[in-house]
Amino acid sequence: MPLSPPAPCRLAIAVALLAAVPGVAAAAPEAKPAKPLTMQDVIAASRPSDWRALDPERTLYMDLPSGRVVIELAERFTPLHAANIRTLAREHYFDGLAVLRVQDNFVTQWGDPNAGEDKARPLGKASKTLAPEFTRPSKDVPFTKLADGDVYAAEVGFSEGFPVGRDPKTGETWVAHCYGVVGAGRDNAADSGSGAELYAVIGHAPRQLERNIAAVGRVVRGMELLAALPRGPAPMGFYDDPAKRTPITSVRVAADVPQAERTPLEIMRTETATFASLVESRRNRRDDWYHVPAGHIDLCNVPIPVREPPAR
Amino acid sequence: MPLSPPAPCRLAIAVALLAAVPGVAAAAPEAKPAKPLTMQDVIAASRPSDWRALDPERTLYMDLPSGRVVIELAERFTPLHAANIRTLAREHYFDGLAVLRVQDNFVTQWGDPNAGEDKARPLGKASKTLAPEFTRPSKDVPFTKLADGDVYAAEVGFSEGFPVGRDPKTGETWVAHCYGVVGAGRDNAADSGSGAELYAVIGHAPRQLERNIAAVGRVVRGMELLAALPRGPAPMGFYDDPAKRTPITSVRVAADVPQAERTPLEIMRTETATFASLVESRRNRRDDWYHVPAGHIDLCNVPIPVREPPAR
Repeated sequence: MPLSPPAPCRLAIAVALLAAVPGVAAAAPEAKPAKPLTMQDVIAASRPSDWRALDPERTLYMDLPSGRVVIELAERFTPLHAANIRTLAREHYFDGLAVLRVQDNFVTQWGDPNAGEDKARPLGKASKTLAPEFTRPSKDVPFTKLADGDVYAAEVGFSEGFPVGRDPKTGETWVAHCYGVVGAGRDNAADSGSGAELYAVIGHAPRQLERNIAAVGRVVRGMELLAALPRGPAPMGFYDDPAKRTPITSVRVAADVPQAERTPLEIMRTETATFASLVESRRNRRDDWYHVPAGHIDLCNVPIPVREPPAR
Repeated sequence: MPLSPPAPCRLAIAVALLAAVPGVAAAAPEAKPAKPLTMQDVIAASRPSDWRALDPERTLYMDLPSGRVVIELAERFTPLHAANIRTLAREHYFDGLAVLRVQDNFVTQWGDPNAGEDKARPLGKASKTLAPEFTRPSKDVPFTKLADGDVYAAEVGFSEGFPVGRDPKTGETWVAHCYGVVGAGRDNAADSGSGAELYAVIGHAPRQLERNIAAVGRVVRGMELLAALPRGPAPMGFYDDPAKRTPITSVRVAADVPQAERTPLEIMRTETATFASLVESRRNRRDDWYHVPAGHIDLCNVPIPVREPPAR
């Protein structure tokens, strides 16, 4: 008795527009509504131009014993953090560190177990602190608005594959803290983060973190490797027993990884008509399982499709 | 460099009201704003009347090899399902069945691996199908409104410990599909669910399921036992290898469990001023870590506190 998750999309708009042309509606044969498309239909009908390859310089591979987590860096939003994380990765800073904390319905966080202590691993040429980068000016930031509204932000939508919030009053845009978004842990001071300690959201979007922390990227593959880890028993999900921590084999910039070892992935472009169709297919699901289409969709419930490049 | 999660609450409202009384503001001494309370402060200051014990007849214990999951049944919203699930539990229907499906950022689902086949376990005196119970009339349903708005429902709030959505136009109320909410799987027909196959939400709230399926309860303890399970590799998170399924030791109605083996828990009453303070403490966090309070809170980000009864 499975919960069926397919997601069709209605594309009867063209038909409705035709019927609205004066003098045509009466004469036209009975218009048969187009069968709603599922998300799978939308993806199957997409063109190569609807997709972009991950930029290897803006992509991190975090290899765990269980497999690879692929993270796209939000370069436009957090350029200082992206650069610092690349520096750390190229120094092999993260290799041999560990997942320190898994707090149920919140975050999985990784870094140096000895951070802040004498035994802490040095950051080398990387900065110990960075300007906050919690938001950035909206000017020149591509933005595809989601019309469904939002509890937290005046406007929400997508920018180059990232879910974003926007405030027209302050002129700021930021990456929204949806499931899978990666942020840079910090202490109380706004500039105390460096990207040396990172976390991924593994539960209902903790949107209250927005404008308070740098959202530096998004997991585009391998979230299940971070989300299915045992929750830490200590406060905030820390592991009191170091042996329970998941070790990090390595974190590398994809550009530094031999071609044969890379994970080639493409992301659907969020500024396309195809993506707009996909959003509608999820906003109003009309397959046989759904009896009442929702009529709305939450920013963090919109999937941003990722695929392996098709054979050409 | 932990992400600090404490959650203070501002309680300067009384002071502000005092200052607004004409002729008083000028004469009154400089009012020192009250220190905002954290969620922990609100809970610490709560009175016994702010809490209620779980009703053992409306509580399920699902015992897994890893521990106990405690589920409160949403009796007022899905009485037929609650009764049927109790019948099934009392027939030991679930004992020895398994977690069949864990789909990342969606649901963990359990039931009979052989459902729908010749080897399926019989439901005994329980009904094979039930009236849908996807919503219920709002009339006489207690409702504490959350003022923050919602993407999916015209109104949202809380009813006797459950997050709910409400439509004043149709006069319907339903339990919202927040993290930890338990629903009854069904086939395409609206009346095809029985409560014999259940799921819990383990990701960002799949609110599109609302009004399409019966939300029969909520996990009040033990979510981490369901959320940290390995994701199934087959479509929709099913396990293709039966050996990977997590077995269910037993599902029992708490009332049928000897007192010494019960898990005594209390839930904060969601209709109290204390709970309203708690919501505010989460809406605008004002501890030293947060620089910008969110000003709003999503229904599914409001924690509904659960505690062991204090020693009296």
